[in-house]
Amino acid sequence: MRLTLLGTGNVQGCPVYGCKCSACLRSQQDARYSRHLCSALLEHDGKKVLLDANHPQLQQLFPAGTIDAILLTHYHMDHVQALFDLRWGVAPSIPVYQPNDPQGCDDLFKHPGLLQFQPANQANIPFQLVGVEVMPLTLQHSKTTLGYCFNSPQGSIAYLTDTQGIPAESWDYLLEKKPDFIVIDCNNSPLQRPKNHNNLQDVLTLAERLPNTCWVLTHISHELDCYLLEYPHCLRDNMVIGHDGLQINL
Amino acid sequence: MRLTLLGTGNVQGCPVYGCKCSACLRSQQDARYSRHLCSALLEHDGKKVLLDANHPQLQQLFPAGTIDAILLTHYHMDHVQALFDLRWGVAPSIPVYQPNDPQGCDDLFKHPGLLQFQPANQANIPFQLVGVEVMPLTLQHSKTTLGYCFNSPQGSIAYLTDTQGIPAESWDYLLEKKPDFIVIDCNNSPLQRPKNHNNLQDVLTLAERLPNTCWVLTHISHELDCYLLEYPHCLRDNMVIGHDGLQINL
Repeated sequence: MRLTLLGTGNVQGCPVYGCKCSACLRSQQDARYSRHLCSALLEHDGKKVLLDANHPQLQQLFPAGTIDAILLTHYHMDHVQALFDLRWGVAPSIPVYQPNDPQGCDDLFKHPGLLQFQPANQANIPFQLVGVEVMPLTLQHSKTTLGYCFNSPQGSIAYLTDTQGIPAESWDYLLEKKPDFIVIDCNNSPLQRPKNHNNLQDVLTLAERLPNTCWVLTHISHELDCYLLEYPHCLRDNMVIGHDGLQINL
Repeated sequence: MRLTLLGTGNVQGCPVYGCKCSACLRSQQDARYSRHLCSALLEHDGKKVLLDANHPQLQQLFPAGTIDAILLTHYHMDHVQALFDLRWGVAPSIPVYQPNDPQGCDDLFKHPGLLQFQPANQANIPFQLVGVEVMPLTLQHSKTTLGYCFNSPQGSIAYLTDTQGIPAESWDYLLEKKPDFIVIDCNNSPLQRPKNHNNLQDVLTLAERLPNTCWVLTHISHELDCYLLEYPHCLRDNMVIGHDGLQINL
């Protein structure tokens, strides 16, 4: 089982359009520091599952027939915008697993094209996908949002974005499961208190309670990147700053 | 006054994801034949106005501070999708001129960011923009849609997409104004009868009635491109197949 972070930026990405902060300038000078919108790829047994669909080169990266499924966290535009182009392809249909959000986004349900929307995932009811057990976990966001814990005989990886904190029932599951890796929404530095996302202080507190899990930060704003440039030693030993292309192999 | 076609494709673009038709294969082999989603750039007096906002490299093509205004034809996703990223920039605000569509698209009105939505344009009531007279014209589409005729002392260019036919009041204006160029929605070949777009037969009929206007085809599907490959001499003398990057100078 492999999880690749395709994008680790927040809704603004990095560089932010027009911004001249140290993080944005660094990412303009060295593309390794740029951040696409937040999404990931789960691979198992030669199969590919997209976690959210927003990559600007999605169609080039994943030619027709190579996406076995799409698993959505929620229907905010910055997580689903690539579906609008993808749907009109002349290609095999793609099953889309989703949270329970009857509205979806714009006219996706009215004109699904090649997207085959599946019955909504239910929190805490696991299902099988490309040979992996997927456990949907409730998150706390401004729109109905699910995180997912991927369980294989080799271990577990949880993918938890977008969220502010982790709701008790999801946290109970994680404390028991003790995933090897938790990819976690960390939108801001401790200097900012976002309403629907974690800041770094939130994640420091969470990571302390699962000390043997590796916590990988994602959904990172340029503001947090600036903070991390200024305070490079502010993380716990069991925390890693995510970057586009980072691979987790189990 | 200059109008540059930034994109001349229909909702699918070209190449279409997964398609192996002759038009899609040609565009994969030679990028000059590829078509982005339909949009354009109006330039006058050193100022830049985007006609719709959907180009995948919009932020790179137009760095912060270089877009003086955005003029929208309608709120279908394939015409406004670049606004969703653009709005979160750290950059000067951008006035957005728009048709009267209270719903807009997804949460653009709720979270406009740097976009400054202007009072809706009214059909047949001209206004000034970057030193050009802009005449909004009613079009016939599945969503409230405006075409625009740009009038300068050097001449006139009309930009009419998305539409099926041209409503009588707009046609009356064009017959009197006799624009030098009309950029026109031509989504399909005569073999297909799209519901909310022109096919080539529609445009042949229109072009006959304004024989001294140069009719530039846009919003072109791969299906029409295949037809044009097969029947290269099917156009009238006053018709031109649009391509990405085509410039009209007056």
